[in-house]
Parts: sequence; structure tokens; C-alpha cells
Amino acid sequence: MPASYAYLGPEGTFTEVALRTLPETATRQLVPMVSVPAALDAVRTGEAEAAFVPIENSVEGGITTTLDELVAGEPLMIYREVLLSITFALLVRPGTQLSGIKTVTAHPAAQPQVRNWLKAHLPDAVWESAASNADGARLVQEGRYDAAFAGEFAAARYGLEALETGIHDAENAQTRFVLVGKPARPAAPTGADKTSVVVWQRDDHPGALLEILQEFAVRGVNLMLLQSRPTGEGIGNYCFAIDAEGHVSDRRVGEALTGLKRMCPQVRFLGSYPRAEVDPADVRPPRVGTSDGEFAAASDWLARCLDGRF
Amino acid sequence: MPASYAYLGPEGTFTEVALRTLPETATRQLVPMVSVPAALDAVRTGEAEAAFVPIENSVEGGITTTLDELVAGEPLMIYREVLLSITFALLVRPGTQLSGIKTVTAHPAAQPQVRNWLKAHLPDAVWESAASNADGARLVQEGRYDAAFAGEFAAARYGLEALETGIHDAENAQTRFVLVGKPARPAAPTGADKTSVVVWQRDDHPGALLEILQEFAVRGVNLMLLQSRPTGEGIGNYCFAIDAEGHVSDRRVGEALTGLKRMCPQVRFLGSYPRAEVDPADVRPPRVGTSDGEFAAASDWLARCLDGRF
Amino acid sequence: MPASYAYLGPEGTFTEVALRTLPETATRQLVPMVSVPAALDAVRTGEAEAAFVPIENSVEGGITTTLDELVAGEPLMIYREVLLSITFALLVRPGTQLSGIKTVTAHPAAQPQVRNWLKAHLPDAVWESAASNADGARLVQEGRYDAAFAGEFAAARYGLEALETGIHDAENAQTRFVLVGKPARPAAPTGADKTSVVVWQRDDHPGALLEILQEFAVRGVNLMLLQSRPTGEGIGNYCFAIDAEGHVSDRRVGEALTGLKRMCPQVRFLGSYPRAEVDPADVRPPRVGTSDGEFAAASDWLARCLDGRF
Amino acid sequence: MPASYAYLGPEGTFTEVALRTLPETATRQLVPMVSVPAALDAVRTGEAEAAFVPIENSVEGGITTTLDELVAGEPLMIYREVLLSITFALLVRPGTQLSGIKTVTAHPAAQPQVRNWLKAHLPDAVWESAASNADGARLVQEGRYDAAFAGEFAAARYGLEALETGIHDAENAQTRFVLVGKPARPAAPTGADKTSVVVWQRDDHPGALLEILQEFAVRGVNLMLLQSRPTGEGIGNYCFAIDAEGHVSDRRVGEALTGLKRMCPQVRFLGSYPRAEVDPADVRPPRVGTSDGEFAAASDWLARCLDGRF
Repeated sequence: MPASYAYLGPEGTFTEVALRTLPETATRQLVPMVSVPAALDAVRTGEAEAAFVPIENSVEGGITTTLDELVAGEPLMIYREVLLSITFALLVRPGTQLSGIKTVTAHPAAQPQVRNWLKAHLPDAVWESAASNADGARLVQEGRYDAAFAGEFAAARYGLEALETGIHDAENAQTRFVLVGKPARPAAPTGADKTSVVVWQRDDHPGALLEILQEFAVRGVNLMLLQSRPTGEGIGNYCFAIDAEGHVSDRRVGEALTGLKRMCPQVRFLGSYPRAEVDPADVRPPRVGTSDGEFAAASDWLARCLDGRF
Repeated sequence: MPASYAYLGPEGTFTEVALRTLPETATRQLVPMVSVPAALDAVRTGEAEAAFVPIENSVEGGITTTLDELVAGEPLMIYREVLLSITFALLVRPGTQLSGIKTVTAHPAAQPQVRNWLKAHLPDAVWESAASNADGARLVQEGRYDAAFAGEFAAARYGLEALETGIHDAENAQTRFVLVGKPARPAAPTGADKTSVVVWQRDDHPGALLEILQEFAVRGVNLMLLQSRPTGEGIGNYCFAIDAEGHVSDRRVGEALTGLKRMCPQVRFLGSYPRAEVDPADVRPPRVGTSDGEFAAASDWLARCLDGRF
Repeated sequence: MPASYAYLGPEGTFTEVALRTLPETATRQLVPMVSVPAALDAVRTGEAEAAFVPIENSVEGGITTTLDELVAGEPLMIYREVLLSITFALLVRPGTQLSGIKTVTAHPAAQPQVRNWLKAHLPDAVWESAASNADGARLVQEGRYDAAFAGEFAAARYGLEALETGIHDAENAQTRFVLVGKPARPAAPTGADKTSVVVWQRDDHPGALLEILQEFAVRGVNLMLLQSRPTGEGIGNYCFAIDAEGHVSDRRVGEALTGLKRMCPQVRFLGSYPRAEVDPADVRPPRVGTSDGEFAAASDWLARCLDGRF
Repeated sequence: MPASYAYLGPEGTFTEVALRTLPETATRQLVPMVSVPAALDAVRTGEAEAAFVPIENSVEGGITTTLDELVAGEPLMIYREVLLSITFALLVRPGTQLSGIKTVTAHPAAQPQVRNWLKAHLPDAVWESAASNADGARLVQEGRYDAAFAGEFAAARYGLEALETGIHDAENAQTRFVLVGKPARPAAPTGADKTSVVVWQRDDHPGALLEILQEFAVRGVNLMLLQSRPTGEGIGNYCFAIDAEGHVSDRRVGEALTGLKRMCPQVRFLGSYPRAEVDPADVRPPRVGTSDGEFAAASDWLARCLDGRF
């Protein structure tokens, strides 16, 4: 029996499409789960080798359900990320014309992405929410609604056809997914990596967030995401989910993390993994003085100082 | 006809209870709306004088719907905040015993607050989600479910009785609500105020968030909330909703805001207003050198330098 | 009787040469003084309109006598600076050959500048210190020594000839002189100005110097000199003489100075004045967000926030 | 033949008194030298085991001759520091009355310390400078002058008597001396140590000094001295002599030094040594998160992250 990857289901959604971009899925059993917590719990209990869930999108920002599940409970680690551009198709039963569409459906998260298109092309259509985009397509197949917004890939599965494709409001609508497993050795550094951590600040310490950011800045580590999440200890108490450029085995990143570990009451390492779909032009070289070679040379020098040989 | 306050409905929820703590509601018409956007739009169109909506809670953190509505669209301003402790009662039809409860309902947001209580006292009860806690109570009244988690205050409205009160999982479960209106002169400073702004960082500028925080830190202004929100320009592009201690008319706050205005491509002022339920012991005096008196003295000195009289 | 400028004498030194580069000296009486304190006291007592003294050179750094006189006592202000490249000539009585030179003299400060030249060309010559370079030339004239290192300009005054010119060890050996007067309105800004202040740090406050530098950095003001000077209150107690880019009437500089004034127990303004011999290529434009126009726009915006009109 | 310590002579000055407070001087030959460079060169050439020279005093600040000698040339290291309170005695030939004193002498550095006393008690006495305070005493012995300001300890050596003792102007007039040797293993940490380094900033890099200070601040290392010294590459080019709290073997100090080594074109380690005459109340414990134990715990944690075992 092949190892299984749990993912946020149902089948036929963008999550599954993103998941299938990972080569190893060819040899894995892919198991849709009803929720992000369910998918992650499947990893924690050992039912699944890994879970594939959305963690950030360009409309909602950090996906709080996913972040909160990673922040609390038994530790998990991120091993891969996948970026997927999100554009919708308008799926209908074969033969349906635009003029014949009175009702449309999709998951509520699709609404901000198709709102302008609807206003322009189907101003009078009535919107009904579905449990997922795939479920919306199924309901169109069953005749409950006239059209569904979903990924174009869902048409074949539900015997529908795409009357229109490439529908999206925000430019660059994207979702970032992560493959999560139990803690183990991180993927090897590739030169374009990302490290995720959660950092708790000291209680009632003005300037604590500034100090957290300085631990990164002083070592030349850029941040790519900072998302505050409540700690559950009352309003105004936050921890921070942070994505930083670089790999935990890069010395600048490692030193920054130990700085956080020393200064903060709690730090949770969430993994180092290759950045997805990264434009080589966006990969900044380490700032002067922050490469591994420079770290090693400085450590050698310090050893000589401690020894009085210089 | 009295001026009206729109609020996130329906009637009989925690939002209404929080709203009614404002003295002026005695002379206002209180109008429940189906959503936060609807409530805020009522202000923008002039239908309502103000809108009362949740903006932060101790379980979810910043309420993204509310933040996103304030970040975009026609400017609005926050005039008041209300903090409400959230504890649930288990409401049943008169005569129902704990042992007779097979189904329970409430808004999904209530679930994390009552999960442990359910596990301990009603491990076999089936949970069904309701559109709101008030709606859950109504469904119990109608006999659809055996019990609803809601505010104790909802019992009388729906002819139910509270079998248990004070149910909550997280200590200090609280929700923060704000009263929002069209831009006008902010409330007068009280000495324990809060200022809300949204700040956009310069594109692709490593360290931009650090610089934003330093504009506050160098003037001794403490932050109480920092919530990143996507700008809608693609994944990884964020603006920051920030709550700072102090009033826009405090010189340290005003100078920090002008610093942000100069450095950042966009800053949106969301208002200065009295901090709710503030413990006087938590009101930190301005750091050395940051009181209005010290600002005025330094300005006088600078004027003398410019004049060569010293 | 024309107004007089006191300067660090005697006549015929680099100081006088630098002073004479100021056009207005054509209409001033130039009065050599025996010491920097004497020159500055002549201003304080009203005997001289201004004093011209060295304040920094590329070998010694800040001239501590001058700095200490400006730091303490009745306030004075800097109105002009002059940079002079320092190269020495070897002055001899007419007819003297290099091979005939057994003794050389000059002010001790000249020694590091001519040491290598001496080693190469006159390895056996005996060095004797003189009270000033001009005095050394006089002693050669009188036959006490065979040669003097001095400015080439001194040859004519003492009937000597320059056997060699352009002698200097360090590349770019320069001295910076300042014209100091009683406090009055600073010179108008030129776009390439410098502002001098002395700042005292709070006692025993770790990180105080960092905070001082941040007041400049956060407003994009670059520093050109930072020289610690003892406060006279025991070892380890220092104040800092600071030269910053820009003019006190530039808003970024003015705001930084008020920041220092608020945070530090004492700040002494020493003047804003045109930078000397500045290469236009070295004049950095204000950092984004720190020009006067951006300051004015941000102030307007703040006024609108305070008024609720936006 | 015992090992020798060179020191800034002549005999009978404060430097010798300070040197003799070191217990090991009982078994060393103490050799007065004519200048600080001569004393340090004696170490470099191997003639002396160590040199004892002044490095900072409460009137002049950093002693630039000493700093410049340590900054350039073959590396040396500081092994000890001694703090000496400086008060003068007025030494006269036996029988001399105050009323009979017409001429006084001392090293010029003594003048600011005795100026007020002179004005009050000997307003008409003529001051003549001596090459050292000890030399002044000798000249009084020889009858050249009537009185000399010197350390009281010099009276016996020159057959003089102290007409007045405890003369000093500034409160807490102190001089700090250091014992300098060739590089070798630093003294063991004592818990109240000091580390001296010289740091060069990157050319023409605004904010370079701020970055240097942040390398210390982010690791909770306090600074005790920052003295800029010209690099010899033209006016405005400075390096910084820095004294930091702590020992190079303290991990917070070591990491700060490697940070400097990475960021700056050059760093020269000048030694770690026990702080002199330190009041235990002035020894600040390491800031939260900066003790060696916390560094070790964070390194362990990082190792577990790299291994995926947590």
C-alpha cells in the first residue's frame, strides 16, 4: 500500500491541482479531507505521511486555520511549497448559453475573484454559496444551478463545459500551499529557500516586535511574511508567523533563529524548504558580510582571538 | 426620526450587547445588518450615522472582514471601541435536562470556546452550525435542536433557560468592537487613547517593516496591534493595520504618523479614540523626552537655534 | 577701524593661508593669537568679530582643544569651514644643498607628515621641535637650524627658498578650519551644508549612543563626524561632537535636533554652514521621504487628520 | 635577569605609581621610556615583556598617542587596566612658604587640574611647563623654580616637601592605564571584564556607525568607550576604538565581534581583561537571553531544528 498524502478536499479543487504538481504524488495515495485540521491531524496520528494545505493567498493573506493548526499542538514541519495562480472558469451543462444563466454558485472565497466579471456579464444572476468549488460544479451537473465558478480542470470530472475561462479580479491572484509532515531533517538548501517560524513576544514588552525584526535585520535576513496570530491568552496577545529568506542551515538564518530563541519565551521552527516558482532575478545574494563563507572566516578569526594567535 | 447606528446583526448577539454599553444608543435607532460590509456601507451611503462592528477577538485575532473594509473604499474613521468578555450559556427549552441533549448548535466561531466544555459534559452531542448564535437559540425554540450556545441574555428573547452559564475555553475570551463613522474631528484625547492606521510598505524593500516600527519606536510610541493584510496586488504584498498607544494630537504620535506618511507610499488614518476598559495601571506615561511639553520645549529651542538666540 | 578676525597664530602658518581664502578677510584686520582658547576668548569678550581655528585634521582627527573650547563656556557658533590640503616644503637659506642639511625643525604636528621623506632623503638629519612651523622657518633664517618644514608660502616671509615642495606622507593630508563667532542667525542653506552639535548622553544608560544615532538615521540625516569628548565628570563620561549633513533649517535636520533635545540632558547647537570644497557628486539628495517638500506634505496631511477632512 | 616592563617615564610620575599597583611588578624590572611609542616598540621588538601606558583620562578622554599606536603597526594586546585617581601636591624645597612662591612648574597636562587652585592661592605665580611632573620636581630641587605640582609620592625622591596635597579641579579626576603585550591567550574571564577592539567602517556608507553599534546592542553588549580615530586616508575617514562590557569568551561578545568582523573591512582585537576598581553594583548581569547558558541552549535547539528532532 503506497504512503498517503492527505489534502484539503474535496477532489477537483485548486488544492488537488496544486498537489499534483509535486512529482512524488505519482506514487502516493492522495486522500481528500474535510478540513485543514483533519488533514494535519492525519499526519499527527500517522495515518498520512504528509498533508497538503493552503497557507496564504493573495486575497485573504495568511490562512488562519492553517497557521493556527501549525502554531499549536504537536509540532509539524513544512517541506515544500507550491504557488498556484487562481483563475476561474464558468462551468455549465453542455448547451447552456450565457443568456440562459439565472443562478451561479461557488465557494464563498471565489466571490471576490469573480465579482467584477459577474457585474459585467451576468448582472442579474443570483449567487448561491457552495461548500466547495467542486461541490458547486456537482450541483450544476445535478441541475440545481445553471453555472458554477471553478477551476477549468473540474469541467471534465462533472461532465460540464467551460463557457468562459481565465476569470479573476485581482491581478496575480495566487494561492500558496504547503506540504506538511512530522519533524525530520529539512530539505537540503537550494540557494533559494524559505524558513518559517512562529515567535512569541515577551509579555507587555514595548518594542518586542522591533527587537524580533532586528534579530533578522542585523544578520541581513529578509522577511517575506509576518502574520500576527492571537496566542489564546486574551485580546492583544499575539505571536508572529514569520517567513524569512534563506535556509536554517545558512549561518545568517541559524544565528538569527538562535537570537530569537534566546530573546523570546517561545519559538517554533516550522521548516526550511525551496521557494516555489522563484524568479532567479528575485533571489537576492546575501548582503555583504552574511554569506556562509564570511561567517566561517569570522569564526576562525574569533578562534584566533581567543587563542591570541593573530 | 432619530439617527441610526447600523450593527452586525442579528439582534440578540454579543455585538448588540456591546453596542448597548454606549450611552448614546438610548437615543439612536439600532439597525441590525446582515454583514460587516453591509453595516459599513450604510455609513458610506449616509443611511446610518455610524456602524458598530467587531474588529478583533482573542481567538481569531484581527477580524479580517472588518479590517479589509476599513483598508479599502471610501475612508471611514473609528470613534469608539468597546471590549466585551465572551462567555456562553447553554440555552435549552424549559425542562430540558443535560442528559436529554443530543444535538447542540451555535455560530461556528463559538465552537473553539465551548469545545472543551462539550467534551467534558456532552461528549456524544452532535454539533450543527447556525448562522449566528441568536439564530441557534431560535432553532432551539423551534425544536430543531436541543440546546444552543449563546449569550445568557438571549434566553429571555427566545423563551429558553440557561442550563449552564460562564462557559468559555480560553481565559479572557474577549471581543473588541468599534464604532465607525465618516471622517470628522477625532474624539478629544483622554490620556489613555489609541490611534489606528493602515500603512503600506514600499515594494520589495527589505527592512521596510522594521523602518515602519522604528518611526514609532524612536518617538516612544508603543504598538498594541500589528496585523498584516494583503494589498490585493499578488501574494506577498501586504499592508499593516496598526494600533498605537496615544492620540493623533499627542505630538509623539503626530510626528510618528508624519514619518510614516513621508516614508510609505500610502498611509490611511483610521482614527484616535479612548481605550476601552483600560486599567489605569496599564497606562504607561510617555517615555522620557516624548511628552507634549518636551516636544514644545524642543521646538522653542530649535526656533532659537534658527534665530541664533541662545 | 575694521572689524577683526582672531586666528591661531603665528603669522605665516597654514591657518593664516586657510583664513585668507575667505573673501571678507580683505576688509578685516587679521590678528594672530597664541592659542585656540585665546582666539575664541577674543570673540567671547567682543575683542574680535570672529575667530579662525583648526577643528579637524586627517592625522589627529578632531582637534580636542578646539572642540573642548566649543563644548564648554559661553556658546559660540560656527559660520564657515575651510579645507586646506597640507603639504610641506623644505625651506633653507639660499644656497643650502640637501647634502649640507644636518638639522631640521618644524612643529611636532608636522613630524608624522614628513617622517618617510626624512627617512628616504635625510636619514641622518637631527630633528628639533619648534613652537610653530613659522617659528621653525624663523630659526632657519637666524641660522639656528639648517632647514625647516613649513608651508611653501613661508619661504618669502623669512627670506628662505624651497629646496623641495609637496612633501606629505598620508595621501589627502588635510586640515579643516572653522570661522567661529557669537551666536546669530546661521548662514542661509546652500544645498550642501553641515550642522554641528554637541550631545550629552543620559548617565549610565546603555544604548544611549545608539539612540542618538537613530534620531538622525530615522530622518535620513547622514553623519560626517562623531567625536567623543569627556564631560569632565569622571572617566567614562562622554559627550559627542557630531557633524551632520544638512542645514538646521532643513526639516529633517531640525526634527532630528529636536529629537536629541528631547532625549538628551543637554544639546549644544554649534551652527549650520556651507560644506567646504564639496564635490557636487558627493552631495547625496535627501533619502526618499526626507525632503522639505515631503515634510510639508506630511504636515498638511496630519492637519487634515486632526480635522477629520480627508 | 627578570623580565622587564617598559612604562611611560620618567620615574616618579603617576604612571609609575599606577604600575606598581600590579602585584607582579615586584618581580619585574621596570624600565621608564621617553614616550608611549617607545614603550610599545619595546614590546614589539621583544626588549620588554609588556608596556604600561595611559590610555584614557577624565580630562583628555582617549589618549590619542596610545590609541594610534595600538591601532596601527604590529598587533598588541591589552592584558590589564589600572585606574588611578589623580590629585596633585604642591612640592617645595623644605622651608619654602606659600608667600614665597613666584614660579611654579609641572607637565602641561597638569595645568587644567590645578588652574583654579592657582587662581585662588597663587594668582601672581608664573607658570613654566616641564617635560614631566617628575622633571618639574627635579627643577625645583635644583632651584630653577619655587614649586612644582606633582604626585605627593615625588616629594621624597627629590628631597622636597608637600606644602599642599589633594589639589585637583575636576571631581573624580582619573587616569586609566593599560598593560600591553604581544598577542597571547587573553586573561581568564572574571565576570566583570572589558573587551577592546578597533573597527573600521565601510567607506562612504551612511549609517555604518549605527550598524556597528547595533551588532553590540542586538546581543545585549554595553559599550563603555567609543573613540573615533582618523584612518590616515584623508579627512572624514575614521575608525573607532571601542571598549565593550564583557569578555571575548562570553558568547554574546564573541558573536558581536564576529558580526563586526563580517560587516567591516577591518577589525582589530585589542584584548579582554578584568575591569579595574569595579564597583560590584555597577556590574550589570547579562540582559535576558544573552548569558552563555542561554546561548548554549539556543545552539542546542538549532542543532535539533537542523536534525528535525523536536
